[in-house]
Parts: sequence; C-alpha cells; structure tokens
Amino acid sequence: MQLAPEEVDYVSGGTRLFGIVGDPIVQVRSPEMFTAVFRARGLDAVLVPLHVQPDVFDACLTGLTSLSNLDGLIFTIPYKARALGLAGTLGPQAEIVGAINALARRDGAWTGEIFDGLGCMEAFRRRNVPLADRRVMLIGAGGAGSAVGVALAHQRPAFVRVFDLDPLRAHGLAAKIAAVAPHTAIEIAPPRVDDVDVLFNVTPTGMLDDARLPLDVAALPASLIVFDAIVMPERTPLIRLAEQSGCMTIHGREMMRGQIHRMVDFFVGADGNPGAAPVV
Amino acid sequence: MQLAPEEVDYVSGGTRLFGIVGDPIVQVRSPEMFTAVFRARGLDAVLVPLHVQPDVFDACLTGLTSLSNLDGLIFTIPYKARALGLAGTLGPQAEIVGAINALARRDGAWTGEIFDGLGCMEAFRRRNVPLADRRVMLIGAGGAGSAVGVALAHQRPAFVRVFDLDPLRAHGLAAKIAAVAPHTAIEIAPPRVDDVDVLFNVTPTGMLDDARLPLDVAALPASLIVFDAIVMPERTPLIRLAEQSGCMTIHGREMMRGQIHRMVDFFVGADGNPGAAPVV
Repeated sequence: MQLAPEEVDYVSGGTRLFGIVGDPIVQVRSPEMFTAVFRARGLDAVLVPLHVQPDVFDACLTGLTSLSNLDGLIFTIPYKARALGLAGTLGPQAEIVGAINALARRDGAWTGEIFDGLGCMEAFRRRNVPLADRRVMLIGAGGAGSAVGVALAHQRPAFVRVFDLDPLRAHGLAAKIAAVAPHTAIEIAPPRVDDVDVLFNVTPTGMLDDARLPLDVAALPASLIVFDAIVMPERTPLIRLAEQSGCMTIHGREMMRGQIHRMVDFFVGADGNPGAAPVV
Repeated sequence: MQLAPEEVDYVSGGTRLFGIVGDPIVQVRSPEMFTAVFRARGLDAVLVPLHVQPDVFDACLTGLTSLSNLDGLIFTIPYKARALGLAGTLGPQAEIVGAINALARRDGAWTGEIFDGLGCMEAFRRRNVPLADRRVMLIGAGGAGSAVGVALAHQRPAFVRVFDLDPLRAHGLAAKIAAVAPHTAIEIAPPRVDDVDVLFNVTPTGMLDDARLPLDVAALPASLIVFDAIVMPERTPLIRLAEQSGCMTIHGREMMRGQIHRMVDFFVGADGNPGAAPVV
C-alpha cells in the first residue's frame, strides 16, 4: 500500500483566495484554468467554485467580500447583472455594458469589469475570423451577451439581429450597439440564420444536460460560423448541430482562454501583487 | 522555456469546499493537511484559509454558511467560543466544553463539535505519556484550553493548576474539570512548574513572531514534559526553552495529527459523502 503524502503543496495558510460565483456551479472551468495561471505566474493563490443560490446572494456576497484574504471574484450565470451593485468603481467595458464578470479588491474597495466581450473577440481573432462588415445573429442580451454585443459593435459589423427572451434587454443592448457603431444596421427579432454570416449563442440554453437548441432549426447553412459561449459541455447541442451542418465552430472555452490573462492582470494588478493597482 | 499546464487537477467546478476561519490565518496548517486527507480518501474537496476580522465575523459567517458547496468549517484563534452560536446542534465534547472548533453541514443544518482535547490526548497516547495521577499546569482556558482541560480530566490527573488572563474563564474551566474528575485537586493560580510533571500551553503566546513565553521563567525542570498547542512556528519560544532545559516536548502539530481523521469523519459523515449523517 502506498501512503498518501501528509500534506498537499498547493494550499496553505498564506494562500490568497479567488472565487467564481454562480448557480449552478459544477459546469464552470475557471477554477482549474485560473489556478494554473496563478501558479504559472508564481502566485500562491487558488480560485474556488462558490455555489450561491439567488435567495441568499446578497448576504453571501456581503460575507465573501469581507474575507480579508479574498482578492477577487468572477461572476457567471445568473449573476453578471446583479453583481454590478457590488462594485464601488467600474472599468471601461463595465461602464458601457452595465454588467460585470469580475470584481477585484483595490486598496480595500472593489472594482468591477467585464471581460466576456474582449475574450470572445480574442477567440475570433485567434481563428482569423474578422467580424467587420459581417451580418450577425446574436442570441442573448444578458450580462455576457451585452458584453459580446458591445465588443462586436467595435468591430463594425454590417448588421446585427438581437434576440432575448426579455424584449427590454434586447432593446437595451440594441441601444448600446447603436451608440458604439452608428452605421451598423440593427434589428430586434426572433432568431433566424438564413441571412447572416455568424451566429452567437450567449444564453445558457444547451448548458450541462439541457438538450435544447437556442433557436428552432433542424439544420444550419454550411457557410455559417457558429459561436457558443457555453463551456460545459464543450460540444453543446448547437455546436453538434453546427458540426453536422458543416459549419465552422468557435467554443466557449476559446472565449475563456481569450480573456483569462487579462482577468488575472486585473486581479493581481500591474505589479503582480493581489490588492494593488488595477490593470484594465 | 517549459510551458505551464493549462489546467490544474486539484480544483474544479465540482470541488466541495471546507475552510478554516481565524485571525490571523497565515500560521494555520489545516489547509495542506486536511486537503491531503480528503485526497487520500478519494474526495474532490479542498480546505482553504478564511481570514475573518472580528468586526465582520457575524456577516462573514452568515455568508460562508449559506454557500451551497461549503460543507464544513474549522475555527481557530480567536473564534472557538464565538463559533458556538453558529451551531444548531452540538456534539458531546462541545456540550461540555462550551466551544467548537468544527462545524459540519448535516441535512441543511450545522452541527458543532470540538476535537482539540481528543487530539491532544491522542498526541500524548502516541508518545506513550500517560496522564493519570500526574500533576499538571494548564495555561489557557479559552476554547482550545477548555477542550484540553476537559479531555485531560477524563484521564484522572492527581492535580491541575489552571491559569488564564481572564479569571472568569479559569474558574469556568475549573468547574468543568471538577465535574468530570471529582477526585482531581484543582487550583487556580499563576503559572509555576516546580511542582508539576506536565505543562500545557494552550494560549497563542509564542505564535508566529511573538517572542514571549506563556510563563515567566528562565529555565524549566528537565523532568517536565512540555506541550505547546501552537502549530506555527513548530518550535515556539516555549518549545525552544524546553529543549534547552532537557525536557521532553510534544508539539501542536502532533495534536492536529491526533484529531485530523476524526474531524474528517465528522465533516464527511460515516458514508464518506459530505452533507450526510455525522460521526462523532
């Protein structure tokens, strides 16, 4: 019988804490990915999953943000808009989008920023897929969907059709896109993809064991480029349909990889010390 | 240049959380030791340090105990007595001692228990040092000191002198010792060791960079057995003086090793599943 070591080497009394807050939480991939980046940068830090139910969100976050050794939080579904209220100051993306996915402690106060849009655009850049002058269908105008929509607007697409189950959110995002890209044609309408080049799903439809598609189709045009923000499973029902239809697919994990280093910069500050000045 | 791995294998969205709550926190050894035991038992769990300041204790613990994926907490200095109020039900040791060092989630409620006394007695047992009929000086009647005092009383020592900076705590512990061991002589008086066999320090005096001794002496009798509950540093000023004086020494880390498996049983339940029935 082999004896297990009496101590692990990756957590101690001096370890700084980061967390990802969501409901559900088992599907997130940030803990293993961010913790690896902290280690690669020589930081004694771990990012843990924090499963917070909606009815205790306020009390739970009051408690978490008062921990002296917790330096940052990531917010995922369904908290990107709600987390906004926790930030004393906002970074430039969060100011426009009106939602945050990251909160970093700065001199005792909390600064919020959203990196989903930057991460998504970075994923397209790494795949050499330009979005300028493209026609786009964007499903989802929540926190992450708005971040993607605003970042997309900076790429100057020719046309964006926005859909959200909540028409108010769809109209709100349309206004933000119009403000950034006044020459982009914008439509608010149910999903259809026969007249667009790129489809973005930025809703939780298809996450975990959800077998649904975010739009009612049996096949997709082979020329369509399909992005799905979901990280778990990696091959969502939409991604599988896209593969069957011969489409190019870009995955949520690529969006996460596109933003992870910028988020770690934000968490640890320019000098690499958690709690120092922000880098956004 | 070697590329760091993109993901670590010890934390994910499904990892269950445990924590140790204290102020200060950097000196604790539970994170690396408990996490190793979880892993050795095949559990996907991590125990992280939670630095909680006294002025935010209540709000912070309300938040932490409402996390759906947090299954247990350990309490260290200065919170062993204060944590008592968080427990809906108490284990048998905590009932007597009036303090807890562990809180486990059971069917949605929290059960408290204290293992310091059992761990300390186990450390003496492993060193083959019986305490029956011995004369003892016990410094510290807080949460851990009371747990050690009550567990010691079960060993039927001949004499126990109790000291605490707070006379009320010293008298409270003396009453608990008397209730368990009516034939043990008990005195409440300042520390002296010329007439005892065993010295227990269960105060934070000597922790981290605190260079003080818990009693005012320049040397110790070589025949004295010296126990210090402090885990960081391992060689406290008291332990170093005891070594210089030729005494046998028993360390705080041995007390922790003596209780760790019983605490993990308590945390994960008889069937090894966090959140299941308690084993106390």
